[in-house]
Amino acid sequence: MNILGISGALRKASTNTGLLRAMKEMAPAKVTVEVATLHGIPLFNEDDEAATGKPQAVRDLDARIRAADGIVIACPEYNFSIPGVLKNATDWLSRGGSPFRWKRVGIVGAGGGQFVGTARAQYHLRQNLQALQAITMPRPEVFVNHNEQKFDAAGNLTDDETRHHLAKWFESFLEWVEKKP
Amino acid sequence: MNILGISGALRKASTNTGLLRAMKEMAPAKVTVEVATLHGIPLFNEDDEAATGKPQAVRDLDARIRAADGIVIACPEYNFSIPGVLKNATDWLSRGGSPFRWKRVGIVGAGGGQFVGTARAQYHLRQNLQALQAITMPRPEVFVNHNEQKFDAAGNLTDDETRHHLAKWFESFLEWVEKKP
Amino acid sequence: MNILGISGALRKASTNTGLLRAMKEMAPAKVTVEVATLHGIPLFNEDDEAATGKPQAVRDLDARIRAADGIVIACPEYNFSIPGVLKNATDWLSRGGSPFRWKRVGIVGAGGGQFVGTARAQYHLRQNLQALQAITMPRPEVFVNHNEQKFDAAGNLTDDETRHHLAKWFESFLEWVEKKP
Amino acid sequence: MNILGISGALRKASTNTGLLRAMKEMAPAKVTVEVATLHGIPLFNEDDEAATGKPQAVRDLDARIRAADGIVIACPEYNFSIPGVLKNATDWLSRGGSPFRWKRVGIVGAGGGQFVGTARAQYHLRQNLQALQAITMPRPEVFVNHNEQKFDAAGNLTDDETRHHLAKWFESFLEWVEKKP
Repeated sequence: MNILGISGALRKASTNTGLLRAMKEMAPAKVTVEVATLHGIPLFNEDDEAATGKPQAVRDLDARIRAADGIVIACPEYNFSIPGVLKNATDWLSRGGSPFRWKRVGIVGAGGGQFVGTARAQYHLRQNLQALQAITMPRPEVFVNHNEQKFDAAGNLTDDETRHHLAKWFESFLEWVEKKP
Repeated sequence: MNILGISGALRKASTNTGLLRAMKEMAPAKVTVEVATLHGIPLFNEDDEAATGKPQAVRDLDARIRAADGIVIACPEYNFSIPGVLKNATDWLSRGGSPFRWKRVGIVGAGGGQFVGTARAQYHLRQNLQALQAITMPRPEVFVNHNEQKFDAAGNLTDDETRHHLAKWFESFLEWVEKKP
Repeated sequence: MNILGISGALRKASTNTGLLRAMKEMAPAKVTVEVATLHGIPLFNEDDEAATGKPQAVRDLDARIRAADGIVIACPEYNFSIPGVLKNATDWLSRGGSPFRWKRVGIVGAGGGQFVGTARAQYHLRQNLQALQAITMPRPEVFVNHNEQKFDAAGNLTDDETRHHLAKWFESFLEWVEKKP
Repeated sequence: MNILGISGALRKASTNTGLLRAMKEMAPAKVTVEVATLHGIPLFNEDDEAATGKPQAVRDLDARIRAADGIVIACPEYNFSIPGVLKNATDWLSRGGSPFRWKRVGIVGAGGGQFVGTARAQYHLRQNLQALQAITMPRPEVFVNHNEQKFDAAGNLTDDETRHHLAKWFESFLEWVEKKP
């Protein structure tokens, strides 16, 4: 089974990219996890699209999504919603037929501080993915908070309890992708 | 009174920018309407921010928002949510203190086709603006649909009924900004 | 195939119940459509639940949901969200294990007036159904507006174009239930 | 100043009603806090409304809302959204002119367990209150979780840190009601 992780953050030491790396490490032998980032995808502008077509970085990500058996999106929260960078990528990807159509998708997210993790962003992302016709796993969910205590400075997950929780979520996700309930 | 319109679309012939131009034309003598676009605001990346600080285009927009008595955001809908370009601008604007704090904000939107105008995007934008501490007018609302019948090829509003509806909305908005209920 | 329609409105002449009756009429020979309403489900109160358990009307609806191959919920919109009556029913149904778990669910809605049909309610219902672990069809969607022109006084669908649009949606839904993508 | 607290839960030992009682205790001398519950408001049904009009419990709550300088709603979360009981009350209150129009409203919520408190419900409630034309305080917010550690069996708030956090929120809210920014 081939899983594609997409990180919604561009920052090099992003904890959300770190969640995807942790999943790569914990994947069972029969499962491959690749991690994609959104670097190189320009701001969407219909005038640019008309002039020069879909950028190569968008075409590449489109192809990787189509080739995957399941997708995990690691979604930061900025100002109670999806990062502009991630929303912008889906704006491009939707043009000319969504690669997410009927794809099995899971969502995870990590954020700093005490309260609601990345919940607000995740629910907006679910509505966005509905437009793209993805089939998004309803539950369980992953909301990592207090990032400052759970990741090192390079964005690697160092907290055992979070790792254990993520591993259980990932197991549920793989079962969901395989069984297609 | 000084109103700043912000268009969430980069396209030159954008109908959403057209809505703001129409408001500029219909403003009463004592009201100034300026129209800002989001051109020149790069994709947000914390690494870039740390290296080079806030881009000039962000600083300029921040200053214009602070100077305005009220803000109107014209919000397209892409894939059941806010355009990435608009969300990305608010991600930058929120850094180091939101210029929208306690500002009176109104939302309008135009989209093609039959059904729900830009409603889905507008509700996501409201949650986004809540994070920025804006005071957003609850009602009335503007959802223009069937753009293809109501704007010319340059994005100018040509439909009289829509113009009338928009004028009534704008009157309510100006009263809301002035009275501060 | 056995489809259960659930109407979110109690009104006898409800247009949303009317949408479900129309689906019953248009179902192909191999498909049975039953229409359930929420009459008899009391307001949820944990104290009542502790004292007297789950009401019979809730147990009956729970059993019908479990027995169905697919569920269609017809969802009115009240004040930009789900009717309290419908939300209250899901509050009861969730107690002690959701009957919606892994069930295929479709959403339709009808409302009066010009603009956004029941879109706002439908997106809240989707989030509610996510909690109940339903697998909700992402697209296509049904937003009937201008009810006053499309239904008779008894809530029967009389508009041919809407009937045609609903029939196409229902065909997509039945395929979605059968194929389980 | 006269603040009306409305509890979204019917349970006698509700922790959300407990949050409102705590606010009553911490109110400064010049501020009165009354706590209202939704007992006695029947399920909304347009047929019943046509036959017998607005129930007395709805009329009473409507009058109390109109008389208040500010409203605090304590909102539990059931299945990722507003309790049906609370939504049902707003369905009744909206009939014939919203008493919330231009009213200053604050939202708090308490829930059990680890993660996102009552955030999902609060954002749905905000959209619901928008329909009712309330002016809802954007920030700060209150999301109490781990109820089982912070309230006694009668639903009284016993946790000092939460009390302190709530007191700070309440102070912000009173300032917001008074200054009307």
